[in-house]
Amino acid sequence: MNIGFIGLGIMGRPMALHLQAAGHRLAVVKNRSDIPADFVDGGALVCASPREVAEASDIIIMMVPDTPDVERVLFGPGGIAEGIGAGKLVVDMSSIDPIATRGFAERIRALGSDYVDAPVSGGEVGAKNAALTIMCGGEPDAFARALPLFELMGKNITHVGGVGDGQVAKVANQIIVALNIQAVSEALVFAAKAGADPAKVREALLGGFASSRILEVHAERMIKRTFDPGFRIELHQKDLNLALGSARSLGLALPNTAIAQQMFSSCVSMGGEGWDHSALVKAIEQLGNCRLGE
Amino acid sequence: MNIGFIGLGIMGRPMALHLQAAGHRLAVVKNRSDIPADFVDGGALVCASPREVAEASDIIIMMVPDTPDVERVLFGPGGIAEGIGAGKLVVDMSSIDPIATRGFAERIRALGSDYVDAPVSGGEVGAKNAALTIMCGGEPDAFARALPLFELMGKNITHVGGVGDGQVAKVANQIIVALNIQAVSEALVFAAKAGADPAKVREALLGGFASSRILEVHAERMIKRTFDPGFRIELHQKDLNLALGSARSLGLALPNTAIAQQMFSSCVSMGGEGWDHSALVKAIEQLGNCRLGE
Repeated sequence: MNIGFIGLGIMGRPMALHLQAAGHRLAVVKNRSDIPADFVDGGALVCASPREVAEASDIIIMMVPDTPDVERVLFGPGGIAEGIGAGKLVVDMSSIDPIATRGFAERIRALGSDYVDAPVSGGEVGAKNAALTIMCGGEPDAFARALPLFELMGKNITHVGGVGDGQVAKVANQIIVALNIQAVSEALVFAAKAGADPAKVREALLGGFASSRILEVHAERMIKRTFDPGFRIELHQKDLNLALGSARSLGLALPNTAIAQQMFSSCVSMGGEGWDHSALVKAIEQLGNCRLGE
Repeated sequence: MNIGFIGLGIMGRPMALHLQAAGHRLAVVKNRSDIPADFVDGGALVCASPREVAEASDIIIMMVPDTPDVERVLFGPGGIAEGIGAGKLVVDMSSIDPIATRGFAERIRALGSDYVDAPVSGGEVGAKNAALTIMCGGEPDAFARALPLFELMGKNITHVGGVGDGQVAKVANQIIVALNIQAVSEALVFAAKAGADPAKVREALLGGFASSRILEVHAERMIKRTFDPGFRIELHQKDLNLALGSARSLGLALPNTAIAQQMFSSCVSMGGEGWDHSALVKAIEQLGNCRLGE
């Protein structure tokens, strides 16, 4: 199939290579940076703009950083909207604003094509191993059309609901991950401040109702002080901005999400925008002028 | 062995019966309420006061509601301190203040006896099935002396550290459980408010980094609106009071724990002190004037 892929970054590059390796013909955009040789050698069509990519493709996938990037790729000068006719499918795998997503989908549908939002989790490792979790929103037909491509890139693929619902699920995921990190941080810093060994406390709690992937994985990073990402604080800040911005426009208060965002900002004040998000514990430590472990 | 057991409530009664069934001779206190026939038929010694229980026992276990109750049983008129000599062991399985616990232990040790704090989680079901999680603090010898009794009442038994550290672990557990409930509540209410199906979102998130026992068990209760306890909000409020009170005296701010406590208070304003703690979601729903599901 002819597939356009826009956004060949840390995530997009390995994802697109899986599609090419399965025999699909890619169309990509020549950008500021050169197109990696892998794509050219694999027969990819190198285009001058998203418009040309859309003209040359049946399905156009986007994997770009943020909401304004998606908007520019879709509707900016030389954008997808200029090159898309009827009967094509746009798949946005970026993690962006759910409400803006619904507006983008409406405008693409008005041109006669379909739209699926399909943000991922699993990071660079998941992208390289074709093991991403993919959360999808869109009409059943459109989802079915994209599914064979998703199966080349991910493992845990859920059709959550209508268009935008994939982004909603991704935001919900990032809320829970941030707040579970804060939960473990408050509990372990409390334990250390009260004179107990945080590693022993973590051990006593695993297996009970406090157990979580975050208590397994991130609590260990906190105790061992290994804050290399992983998932960078500045990216989690972007995701919580989506949560808080959407919540504001929907009319909903998310108090603990708001505080977690403030704790990430406190980490940034320490120079931590590039730390793993488990380093949120350092902001809680500062609230008690103490430190987990030595 | 001669074992004193003070506090034959919903938790204490089944715990004490396991000890009696294993052949230990119990000493219990005749209180406002009658002693259940099970204990009398099983040969238990019915005493007039904790002092008499302490005189008649090698190990004295307490399972009472709160810090002032433990203090009264230990040091009030007719309390354990009046009847305890050298070489005995006091085991407090109540969930109480970790810092007060260390003071109690010091006073008991000054009388020549040992002290272990061993709060539990697992609720009435865990108590009946002898499947409690038991978090222990105390000297290694004292812990070893109590361990055979713990093994008659629980399954996941951890020696966390010195005296008080069991209570610290229990408080840490209750912080994480409350904040993970709030995490799931904010995420699912956000999802519902943004137009997605919370049940589908939960399904998409299970197995990823957002996964937790709370997402498995309590999120389902939220979606199905089954708020029969389980674990009552008023009890979780007591535990968060321990967390926030101890944190204040230690000099530590726990912002999300403080907010979760406020959300529980909001539930109480709706008449919810007896609801399961997963009903915290109702306070978040009120922050968005909405409701998960129908």
